[in-house]
Amino acid sequence: MLIKSGKSCTFEGESAKTMKKLIIASTSTVHGGKYLDYLLPTLAQHFKACDEILFIPYARPGGISHDDYTAKVREVFSAIDKSVKGLHEFQNPVEAIRKAQGIFTGGGNTFLLVKQLYDNEVMTVLAEVLNHGTPYLGTSAGSNITGISMQTTNDMPIVYPPSFATLGVIPFNLNPHYLDPDANSTHMGETRETRITEFHAFNTTPVLGLREGSWLEVNNHTIVLKGPLTARLFLPNKEAEELASETDLTFLGTL
Amino acid sequence: MLIKSGKSCTFEGESAKTMKKLIIASTSTVHGGKYLDYLLPTLAQHFKACDEILFIPYARPGGISHDDYTAKVREVFSAIDKSVKGLHEFQNPVEAIRKAQGIFTGGGNTFLLVKQLYDNEVMTVLAEVLNHGTPYLGTSAGSNITGISMQTTNDMPIVYPPSFATLGVIPFNLNPHYLDPDANSTHMGETRETRITEFHAFNTTPVLGLREGSWLEVNNHTIVLKGPLTARLFLPNKEAEELASETDLTFLGTL
Repeated sequence: MLIKSGKSCTFEGESAKTMKKLIIASTSTVHGGKYLDYLLPTLAQHFKACDEILFIPYARPGGISHDDYTAKVREVFSAIDKSVKGLHEFQNPVEAIRKAQGIFTGGGNTFLLVKQLYDNEVMTVLAEVLNHGTPYLGTSAGSNITGISMQTTNDMPIVYPPSFATLGVIPFNLNPHYLDPDANSTHMGETRETRITEFHAFNTTPVLGLREGSWLEVNNHTIVLKGPLTARLFLPNKEAEELASETDLTFLGTL
Repeated sequence: MLIKSGKSCTFEGESAKTMKKLIIASTSTVHGGKYLDYLLPTLAQHFKACDEILFIPYARPGGISHDDYTAKVREVFSAIDKSVKGLHEFQNPVEAIRKAQGIFTGGGNTFLLVKQLYDNEVMTVLAEVLNHGTPYLGTSAGSNITGISMQTTNDMPIVYPPSFATLGVIPFNLNPHYLDPDANSTHMGETRETRITEFHAFNTTPVLGLREGSWLEVNNHTIVLKGPLTARLFLPNKEAEELASETDLTFLGTL
């Protein structure tokens, strides 16, 4: 029997404590597509037991308002019969997260998102509910925060967060919108791979470069690469390697 | 008469207090060139009264050692008859900066550079000596720190600095390695212009996008764009505009 009341949509007999359930996507939008369209069938299944999604609009792409961002998400989720509320609409965001049936954190600027999560004192409770079974979708910045830290973001440090530590609901870091070096480029700025190598000069956390169109499916402690593309895994002091779609990434938690 | 002793190379009769003298370059290396080669004639003139350059290697591109980075710089500066010492070679870095005849801060990771400047307690003294006449060269990260803050860097936050505030020896922020949008790109990550616009959703500091091959020459309070290219100026709530080489940017301090 489906139980929708309370803090997450779980099934009777299942232990919410062991049912982590996350979709962690590189991007909300693939080239030529519309917002979230490539993920909608997956999301219909992922959130099937939820009527309402709590949207966290803190990353505010392009500095748009929380209301405008939430309206955009509401429109898309109506296609799979979900209503959407923005976290900024609640007087008590901690309680809103505790009570949410399902949660989506959208992309934008990761520094801004992380600062807002700390300023509103919801970082800890968000990790708690994800570890205890509330279905979650993250795209881009909203995916970045599922890692150990936000230190492999591509974003500009437009605000100063009180810490770079993030949710840690997966045992590694992500680099969303992963971009291969352009062999024809005359630009002398660092490639993405160089930047991640620099990260590993000072940190040991594994980093997964997740290309646009890829996502991770996390069920309990199992993490699987989804979508049509390979992903690029960076470990300290090792050559980067390509991982095929459907690779089980659970081993990254044991390194 | 040339006076080389003391804290900077000044000329008798000039007031060191009013002779800010900075070269602030987008990149150390232009495509097809060698390290600093396009700037060497300018640097020979800029540092003409200095025998020895103090090099700040803290940004450590690719995580290389301070010694290796300093050796690379030493080799290049030998072509214009300057000796080079690395700041990491001194027991007292504050005193080393106070006594330096000329200073060069190289590129790499801006987060790392800024953290090291704070950890070694040299951020304040570095601003002081630059404001009082010690000739300075910055490239990339070493240029970023001359602005009000490092918040328009392109770098990855591989370490957590205690603040994003930087030297403020110019009255605006820089985006080195400025990159124009690629009209043929299928990548959905933010363009550089979008990122700077996001910065301006939360900050009012002007931002100058400095393309590779461009640099600023600062003499006292006069700031002039040099090199063969235009630069792109971003002001909050205004359309970005292209500024021709030789444009006097001093007005940015009066906005």
